[in-house]
Amino acid sequence: MARVSQEHLDARRRQILDGAAVCFARNGFHATSMQDVLKEVDLSAGAVYRYFTGKEALIAAIVEEVLGQVRAGFEEAALSSPPPPPDVLVATVLGRILATKEFLTVDGRPAFPRLVVQVWTETLRNEELAAVLRDGYGAVQQTWGRIVQAYQDTGMMRSDVPADHVARTMMAAAMGFLAQQALFGPVSSEILQDGLRALMSVRDLPDAEHRVTTGGSQLG
Amino acid sequence: MARVSQEHLDARRRQILDGAAVCFARNGFHATSMQDVLKEVDLSAGAVYRYFTGKEALIAAIVEEVLGQVRAGFEEAALSSPPPPPDVLVATVLGRILATKEFLTVDGRPAFPRLVVQVWTETLRNEELAAVLRDGYGAVQQTWGRIVQAYQDTGMMRSDVPADHVARTMMAAAMGFLAQQALFGPVSSEILQDGLRALMSVRDLPDAEHRVTTGGSQLG
Repeated sequence: MARVSQEHLDARRRQILDGAAVCFARNGFHATSMQDVLKEVDLSAGAVYRYFTGKEALIAAIVEEVLGQVRAGFEEAALSSPPPPPDVLVATVLGRILATKEFLTVDGRPAFPRLVVQVWTETLRNEELAAVLRDGYGAVQQTWGRIVQAYQDTGMMRSDVPADHVARTMMAAAMGFLAQQALFGPVSSEILQDGLRALMSVRDLPDAEHRVTTGGSQLG
Repeated sequence: MARVSQEHLDARRRQILDGAAVCFARNGFHATSMQDVLKEVDLSAGAVYRYFTGKEALIAAIVEEVLGQVRAGFEEAALSSPPPPPDVLVATVLGRILATKEFLTVDGRPAFPRLVVQVWTETLRNEELAAVLRDGYGAVQQTWGRIVQAYQDTGMMRSDVPADHVARTMMAAAMGFLAQQALFGPVSSEILQDGLRALMSVRDLPDAEHRVTTGGSQLG
């Protein structure tokens, strides 16, 4: 009985978070009122305020949840040794997040990439939300740092570049890809995987010639 | 005399665009009024409206100019054969754009990355601006497509990936790197260059072993 009740509470919380996410993605954070959220989720103020004290609490919960999922996706990957190559890893985690949010739509298009860009803009003026994003992003960056270290330790990646620089770059690719989806419409994560795979194949020509001559297999 | 006058007009136009960019970066597009812009550039309404009909015209001019600069930077690179490798190319063009906008600051931090993120959010609700961004982005993407084609034609990059997917990925990395600067503060473009260089060195382990065995130099 108590267990059913907890499930009910969780489902209700989920319902509120998803409804708020759609509202924020549709109109932005400032132009969305708690009334809009109540209407979207079709619940009373009492029912919603039991879970969240207001818009700030809602947006913070959404950001924490998403960054937690991103981190968990990469943490899981970091457990395998060697970890999947970056093209596979980034596209898999991003594709999974997009898939879990696919049912949230605005004007028939996925709401999630729009929400991400709205959150970025909001953090420029909201120090509390900026702190939430910084913490969550820092945690993802640390996880990525460990994965890069594994690439370097196993000889999959040149080791003369700080792991942190690689982590920032991988995250930049995923962030920019999400921004593109918000701006220009949804595309498959496989496009990003393709692009990263092609990038992984780039050789400087003099170096390539050098390798032909020596038959060596050293990293470019 | 006529020539001095044109220079004066150009300088005045530049002054207005830069002032407007700082206003938009500081407070966003919606919360900025033309009065705010007039105050920032210290000019009369008559002087400003001679150049721009309003906020929409200002933001469109700013977006067109920046995307034009991005495109020109890559066009120039595309002229050399083979073009510089992606890590050098992206970091050089991005670094150059950031440098030309460095004097525009908000709270002592570079205004340009903030402006970019604000523009993205604004396009979600402003179809005219969305069209300007789509056109400019499409032009940059075409230029990138040609550069990727050159990488593939010269054997610098595997050729079994559509050039367009690589173009999107390179642009995603630059866009996400700009978003990071808006959110977490400025860092050198060399970090992105490092990250891309490291990515270019990644080998799948089985493939790497294969290359050691055969001594071949085929692209991974």
